[in-house]
Amino acid sequence: MREEATAFVPGHITGFFSAHPDDDPTKAGSRGAGLTLTDGVTVTVRPAPAAESSTEILLEDRETESGFTPVSVEPVETVLETLAVSARVEVETDLPLGAGFGTSGAMALGAALAANRVFDRKLSENELVTIAHGAEVQAGTGLGDVVAQARGGIPIRLEPGAPASNLLDGIPARARVEYVSFGDLSTPDVLSGDTDELSAAGKQALSRVVEEPTLASFIFASRAFAREAELLTPDVLEALEDVAAVDGQASMAMLGNTVFALGTGLSDAGYDPSVCATHPAGALLE
Amino acid sequence: MREEATAFVPGHITGFFSAHPDDDPTKAGSRGAGLTLTDGVTVTVRPAPAAESSTEILLEDRETESGFTPVSVEPVETVLETLAVSARVEVETDLPLGAGFGTSGAMALGAALAANRVFDRKLSENELVTIAHGAEVQAGTGLGDVVAQARGGIPIRLEPGAPASNLLDGIPARARVEYVSFGDLSTPDVLSGDTDELSAAGKQALSRVVEEPTLASFIFASRAFAREAELLTPDVLEALEDVAAVDGQASMAMLGNTVFALGTGLSDAGYDPSVCATHPAGALLE
Repeated sequence: MREEATAFVPGHITGFFSAHPDDDPTKAGSRGAGLTLTDGVTVTVRPAPAAESSTEILLEDRETESGFTPVSVEPVETVLETLAVSARVEVETDLPLGAGFGTSGAMALGAALAANRVFDRKLSENELVTIAHGAEVQAGTGLGDVVAQARGGIPIRLEPGAPASNLLDGIPARARVEYVSFGDLSTPDVLSGDTDELSAAGKQALSRVVEEPTLASFIFASRAFAREAELLTPDVLEALEDVAAVDGQASMAMLGNTVFALGTGLSDAGYDPSVCATHPAGALLE
Repeated sequence: MREEATAFVPGHITGFFSAHPDDDPTKAGSRGAGLTLTDGVTVTVRPAPAAESSTEILLEDRETESGFTPVSVEPVETVLETLAVSARVEVETDLPLGAGFGTSGAMALGAALAANRVFDRKLSENELVTIAHGAEVQAGTGLGDVVAQARGGIPIRLEPGAPASNLLDGIPARARVEYVSFGDLSTPDVLSGDTDELSAAGKQALSRVVEEPTLASFIFASRAFAREAELLTPDVLEALEDVAAVDGQASMAMLGNTVFALGTGLSDAGYDPSVCATHPAGALLE
């Protein structure tokens, strides 16, 4: 057993998606496309101290004395139970939580990669991705982030599910990405509602990007999706109009009260965005 | 049309493989496992000058006045013909050619990614990988390098062929990699001979790594494969014995007159190896 292992998992902004529920969590998931980001989540796993046997998840919090706040993250707990380990998990991220960056999926995948290494579980990358994807689907916190974050780049999710059943492609490009977040939007609430209209819009967006896998068509399809699926919040709508007014390219992060732009769209429009880029690699051990 | 685009493609050392010929080059390929490397190939594509219409491939060569030597690389020519473009292609690499690093596959994949961008061909990553893989298979210069180089990390090729038919997994690890090359070993000569014995050994090695996807089992399976497939050259055999004598982990790059080691195996044994690491990402546009 190692003392610790650390994994970095890129953030993932989904531009559009269609939901594909299935009783088997390895087959459930989503089709769609998104951007993986150089802003992401760093997960460090250590064995739980001998005296106590339960897993503890700590989120970095610079405002507390210890530097960490205990949190409950169901997909991470499920991952560690599946690997049959008790661990101390430290999570660091500059991304806002619950704002459409796939942070819960990133925590699950990072915990899987790091715990596999610390506890010498000898699982393959696909096996670890499958465990994290299943945990995320079961918790209802996401449908396609984990497989996208394992791949990196600008993933197109052609078929839903874990690696054994999904099919991924990618847009061969890189981009500077800006984002501004206006607060929470609950993924479980949206995903547990009626997703028929949303999925019809998602399928149309996917056809467009498959026909022309470029950044321009991705952002166009994403904007059309956000409009047609009636997911735009007032804050997001206003920011999109501001970016359009300066000829920028932006859309809404699914599912978050967040606007992202390619290049300098948001800063050109007078916002003070966070700035990162698409991440060329998938999740990785450090 | 852009003025130029550059792609970096990691080198790829195959530890073991089994050959899977097929009349359809998108289904032909190999099963096996290997390491993608931070040492790789950089390919820059520009449109061919207006006056001449034919493609020109130039290999960086610091000993010539122009800095480049014209070369003929069949898979690159096939890729550019498939994309229906004429280009000036500049190739830079520190890797030795024809020594088991997948440089021909890297050139083909880099040319596909960069030409798609320069000539605005709007193909997806899978489509570009398929074109490069098919070109490499048709030229007989490799069977599994392109799909591994597109993925990055430490790829396990569970099913052969281009992305639509293959199945990849990976060993979740990173490593420092050392290598020493003793010169040429012709891939076409080996691949055109009787590959039955080689493929039997390759299947056995793959089962071992699937059962335990770790670096330790990869290097063990690779050494057993090199021995059983009777591919060891005298130079390679001597170096493997030297590394084993200092408790290092090494094997032979397939197919090249090259020894690679994990960690410091070759330098511990008194060699003066090139040093790199596994590459966390697949091929990427710069």
